[in-house]
Amino acid sequence: MARPSRMGDIVAASAKVFREKGFDAARLDDIAQEVGMYKGSIYHYIDSKEDLLFAVVREPSERILGATRKLVEQELPAEEKLRRLCHLHVEVLVNVTPFAAVYIEEIAGKHRFPDWEAKDREYMRLVEDIMRELLGDRRDVDPPVAARALVGALNWMTRWYRSDGRMDADQIADQVADVFLGGLRG
Amino acid sequence: MARPSRMGDIVAASAKVFREKGFDAARLDDIAQEVGMYKGSIYHYIDSKEDLLFAVVREPSERILGATRKLVEQELPAEEKLRRLCHLHVEVLVNVTPFAAVYIEEIAGKHRFPDWEAKDREYMRLVEDIMRELLGDRRDVDPPVAARALVGALNWMTRWYRSDGRMDADQIADQVADVFLGGLRG
Repeated sequence: MARPSRMGDIVAASAKVFREKGFDAARLDDIAQEVGMYKGSIYHYIDSKEDLLFAVVREPSERILGATRKLVEQELPAEEKLRRLCHLHVEVLVNVTPFAAVYIEEIAGKHRFPDWEAKDREYMRLVEDIMRELLGDRRDVDPPVAARALVGALNWMTRWYRSDGRMDADQIADQVADVFLGGLRG
Repeated sequence: MARPSRMGDIVAASAKVFREKGFDAARLDDIAQEVGMYKGSIYHYIDSKEDLLFAVVREPSERILGATRKLVEQELPAEEKLRRLCHLHVEVLVNVTPFAAVYIEEIAGKHRFPDWEAKDREYMRLVEDIMRELLGDRRDVDPPVAARALVGALNWMTRWYRSDGRMDADQIADQVADVFLGGLRG
């Protein structure tokens, strides 16, 4: 009888260890201990520690990128696109916090892994498209700067957001959207 | 004859190594190699790797905190305070990039070192004070959320700002200030 795959458990354990120790300091021994397996058994599933990093961040990064592609193509006012983008980004951050935090800490804007940098760049281009639509004829704010300010404002939530805090994620997404909409509308 | 202190060189080498490898993965051997000293000689200057982290981040964090304390007390319109805060924050990020980036990657919002967390909290309180002044009677945006959005937007610059880029740091600071001022003014 085939044994059930432990890949899901290994990925969850990797997310925890990467978040606590950082990718560079994390050792496969730490992950093996967290998941209760021998290090040698983990090598049945992966070839390297990088494979684990990519397994951890694949789902949140593909979810956010796919949903943003669809959003940009929709027939909606730019204001509504920006608001939905904020909710989408925050929803991914909050629902898969350790996984998304690992992406933000280890990959976003760090130019370390070419495949992932391409996804990162595509996401930024999509956010810039929304900014360009929103700014219209205004030339005093640069769409790439506005896009990076928004993504930075949202990504920073992995450092301060608590699920038992005073405000929920949707309220925070709405307020950040309000601030940027008030400042960016053409 | 007393030998000249190498502490400055050790701190600069530490900033470089911490930024490249992360604090947890960085080894004293890496720093010794970077500065061209024996590991044993470095121990004449410090007791632990944490001492080096604190030496790296002390100057930028004290500069930004001291200047922000003064700014908040000044007799200036809240709009002008927010704009000056953006310039101050960006100036520190850009002029001491490897040092500031280490602070942002390893300390800000991470609750790892109590002394530094107190400074971090004080800085956030000062930014919240400016937000509160700026928002006046508005109740639809929470000052702590606005403060964290701004600090996140600025801190994210360590991931994308290049000194040879299309825009200089002052232009970026102005545009981020414009966006937040447009969205926050009461």
